[in-house]
Amino acid sequence: MFGQMMRSPLLMTSFIDRSADLFSKVEIVSRLADRSIHRYTYGACRDRAYRLAAALQKSGIRPGDRVGTLMWNHYAHLEAYFGIPLAGAVLHTLNLRLHPQEIARIASHAGDRIVIVDNALLPLWEQIAEHFRPERVIVADISGNRSVSENDYETLLENAPKEFNPVRADEDDAVGLCYTSGTTGFPKGILYSHRSVALHSLSMSLPDVLGLRQADVILPVVPMFHVNCWGLPFTAAMLGAKLVLPGPCLDPASILDLFRSEHVTFSAGVPTVWMGILRQLENCADASALLKGMRMLVGGSAVSETLIRGFEAYGARLIQGWGLTETSPLATIGGLKSYMDDWPHDEQVATACKQGLPVPFIEIRTVNTEGICPKDGQTMGEVHIRGPWVASGYFEWESDGGCWTQDGWFRTGDVGTIDSEGYLRITDRTKDLIKSGGEWISSVELENALMSHPLVQEAAVIAIPDEKWQERPLAVVVLKENANATPDMLRSHVAPRFPKWWLPEKFAFVREIPRTSTGKFLKTKLRELYRNGELKI
Amino acid sequence: MFGQMMRSPLLMTSFIDRSADLFSKVEIVSRLADRSIHRYTYGACRDRAYRLAAALQKSGIRPGDRVGTLMWNHYAHLEAYFGIPLAGAVLHTLNLRLHPQEIARIASHAGDRIVIVDNALLPLWEQIAEHFRPERVIVADISGNRSVSENDYETLLENAPKEFNPVRADEDDAVGLCYTSGTTGFPKGILYSHRSVALHSLSMSLPDVLGLRQADVILPVVPMFHVNCWGLPFTAAMLGAKLVLPGPCLDPASILDLFRSEHVTFSAGVPTVWMGILRQLENCADASALLKGMRMLVGGSAVSETLIRGFEAYGARLIQGWGLTETSPLATIGGLKSYMDDWPHDEQVATACKQGLPVPFIEIRTVNTEGICPKDGQTMGEVHIRGPWVASGYFEWESDGGCWTQDGWFRTGDVGTIDSEGYLRITDRTKDLIKSGGEWISSVELENALMSHPLVQEAAVIAIPDEKWQERPLAVVVLKENANATPDMLRSHVAPRFPKWWLPEKFAFVREIPRTSTGKFLKTKLRELYRNGELKI
Repeated sequence: MFGQMMRSPLLMTSFIDRSADLFSKVEIVSRLADRSIHRYTYGACRDRAYRLAAALQKSGIRPGDRVGTLMWNHYAHLEAYFGIPLAGAVLHTLNLRLHPQEIARIASHAGDRIVIVDNALLPLWEQIAEHFRPERVIVADISGNRSVSENDYETLLENAPKEFNPVRADEDDAVGLCYTSGTTGFPKGILYSHRSVALHSLSMSLPDVLGLRQADVILPVVPMFHVNCWGLPFTAAMLGAKLVLPGPCLDPASILDLFRSEHVTFSAGVPTVWMGILRQLENCADASALLKGMRMLVGGSAVSETLIRGFEAYGARLIQGWGLTETSPLATIGGLKSYMDDWPHDEQVATACKQGLPVPFIEIRTVNTEGICPKDGQTMGEVHIRGPWVASGYFEWESDGGCWTQDGWFRTGDVGTIDSEGYLRITDRTKDLIKSGGEWISSVELENALMSHPLVQEAAVIAIPDEKWQERPLAVVVLKENANATPDMLRSHVAPRFPKWWLPEKFAFVREIPRTSTGKFLKTKLRELYRNGELKI
Repeated sequence: MFGQMMRSPLLMTSFIDRSADLFSKVEIVSRLADRSIHRYTYGACRDRAYRLAAALQKSGIRPGDRVGTLMWNHYAHLEAYFGIPLAGAVLHTLNLRLHPQEIARIASHAGDRIVIVDNALLPLWEQIAEHFRPERVIVADISGNRSVSENDYETLLENAPKEFNPVRADEDDAVGLCYTSGTTGFPKGILYSHRSVALHSLSMSLPDVLGLRQADVILPVVPMFHVNCWGLPFTAAMLGAKLVLPGPCLDPASILDLFRSEHVTFSAGVPTVWMGILRQLENCADASALLKGMRMLVGGSAVSETLIRGFEAYGARLIQGWGLTETSPLATIGGLKSYMDDWPHDEQVATACKQGLPVPFIEIRTVNTEGICPKDGQTMGEVHIRGPWVASGYFEWESDGGCWTQDGWFRTGDVGTIDSEGYLRITDRTKDLIKSGGEWISSVELENALMSHPLVQEAAVIAIPDEKWQERPLAVVVLKENANATPDMLRSHVAPRFPKWWLPEKFAFVREIPRTSTGKFLKTKLRELYRNGELKI
């Protein structure tokens, strides 16, 4: 028997209406490429998003069509976040950090009919356009300059029909498309729906998750072309929270400057961002930029204890989250349970270093060759996940690549443990695990241990072939400026934490570790360099 | 084009699994009829809820069947909250404050196949049973005593089959049934679904709504037979928050005792409850019972400024919510926007007295004979509402009674204004409005003004027939103990706030004001008494 409740669909487009109706005065602040600041309100944002939607309809965009964006984090991109779905179309954010040819392949695979491009990114676009030609390119000069071209973003909005025909949307309709950053193989597209975005926004705002509220001032350092900016623009609009968008100025000094001038209470980014900001804080001692009680969501890679404690000293709290493009992304969240308040501080920090508990409506399990792993905090297995904002397939992809189990879970490719309290700890990517003598060694744990040495700036551990053991770990280390350390020093630093057979025999000291477009260690590159005998970077 | 996200249904039954999996040690504390305290954990609660579900299946309960409960707030009722839906059946909470014959009519209309009855409520049940006989009555002696009868709750759980066959649930399946308290006419049933309960739980937990978290200790004074206890048991389980259930001991001293001993951080009830508790606090000066920062949700009727300021003095915050049985119930929530922090304290309190802003996914509008009212904070109209946890019809009811508009909104029967900031203020029930000379007078606003007089304990205002004006207000007033006040004194106290024609000519001083089973003024009774010329109570 069905309940008798209204069939009101969960539509993410309702968020921009809510913020404009109830919080029309709340600001959206953007830093432009020339470093000037643009300010307007949710009221103005809604008007322009609707005009964009009307203009897209007039351009012949039909429900389900893909519209690409090649933009930094700023107000025009936010308008696209809502205007494209309002037209019933699918927002496809292109990752500008990829190779132009790769971007072209992705846009072509997605079938983007129109692409909206930042003025500042036109040189990149020209390289892309050699390989991919959409029906139309709209150029947004966010400084407000306009050209006479009908493909100028401002002109487009100005000429938009006054009457907008709302699309009759279903909550399962597609609204967004993001491609995985793809350290190996061709990137695959994840097709989000109104429903998945709406539920993800609700869940991520909960007090036990990120505790987001209208009074927050949210600055996402994470790019808007990366997993919907972790959902933050949608959530901010749902709540009517002030948004601060840093544009292309992502250096630590510029970010800290916005933290200070806009009274930012919440930010989000990958660990590299926070390492840079912490160094900047330590060097310039300008601690006033951080509001006491400020929270930072960190995701994308594991967070070191050093980083957590570093920000703690400034009264700011790093919150660890875990997820993937396939999971919208937020799946687990770090933090303590009520009864852990009495725990010793060191244990609390150790718990905060874990990837945390699954948020409401998300289920996780770890699975190895022997089946579902016990929740003992020891047994490593691949993390499986399911829930209403987890992908069920890849966009226009013939096979599921073995990524979904028969019983309906997504296989994340991450390896981890779950402890008796339910906390997930990611120990590695399946492909980065080191298989030594039939046992697994976690590269991530070795890296974290190495990075806790005071002379080490960064460390990556990869598997190298070994005749006797099949694979052995190689530590690739970047030392701090002017620092000197020997393999023996580092080995004895980490030795107390691991079984002896985990310790790397070989060390390579390099100047930098190659990274992916989203800031993760590019271990495929390290392995390739090692194979070619050239591990000098 | 559909998104490619998992079709994971939103099931409220997943909440008890989540709390038992992740927060199995968190306690559920119940006060029993003999005043002793029962404690167990979410882990134990889940086991027993599953056993109840298995026992109900074995008893022949099939998906969609209704199972009634006639119980106070305690752990066995919580087991029914989850165990009945786990069996695929519908939890129908019977309001023990109604007349036995009325309860029988409701249970019969609902078609309850089984009813679970508190041992302590057997005398009431016997009166009900004269008019309604379900297939089976299960008696729960929550003190843990058990009889040998197979209809004893403990015996039932003990004999439950070890194997439980999970029901394949759809998120639109019915899980709960509550009847309106019905001040007029036969009560009507609202049939909640998994989805409506799940979304209501997410929304009510948001930081800008109630800000509920795992670390909260939640004591619902609102009965579990009243609109699902405002959803709090479901939400507490979703979050893994400690629950404190007061059983039948609802006097202010007993509640304050639990606040103190269990470190309660969040409570909920109607204004009468909070008036009693405030009086108790003022008389006994035992302020330590309230944790600093404690929040109380108040709903059911409008909250007076006096009450808000009264608790403020103890460092506790009353949060005003508005909703109806038809809206699950939470629809709007009081509170300030970020930019109101600088407002003068008086304006802040005035804003906190309003019923507040619609929570995410809920839409409201006010409508009068001229159409949709402007958002000017002045124009009164009937409040219409829509959203995913709003009823679309009444259970087994041939006509919709004109309660839904053609364009899909529920007509609440409440009258109010919406101001330019989007805040709803309820001014009356449509049927309680006083129509004087073609204009409306709000009985609620007169009542609040009268109750702000230091000598007045309570005041209700009703319409009485008038030859010239059609209707005029009559003020029915309860003075504080040993207080003396004349109509003139009270009239001049309220005069500055209203147009002259709003002021009541007639006053009736009484010893108490009759109330409905849920603590609201029973104005039908007052009108009836007045018609019979007997307004001495």
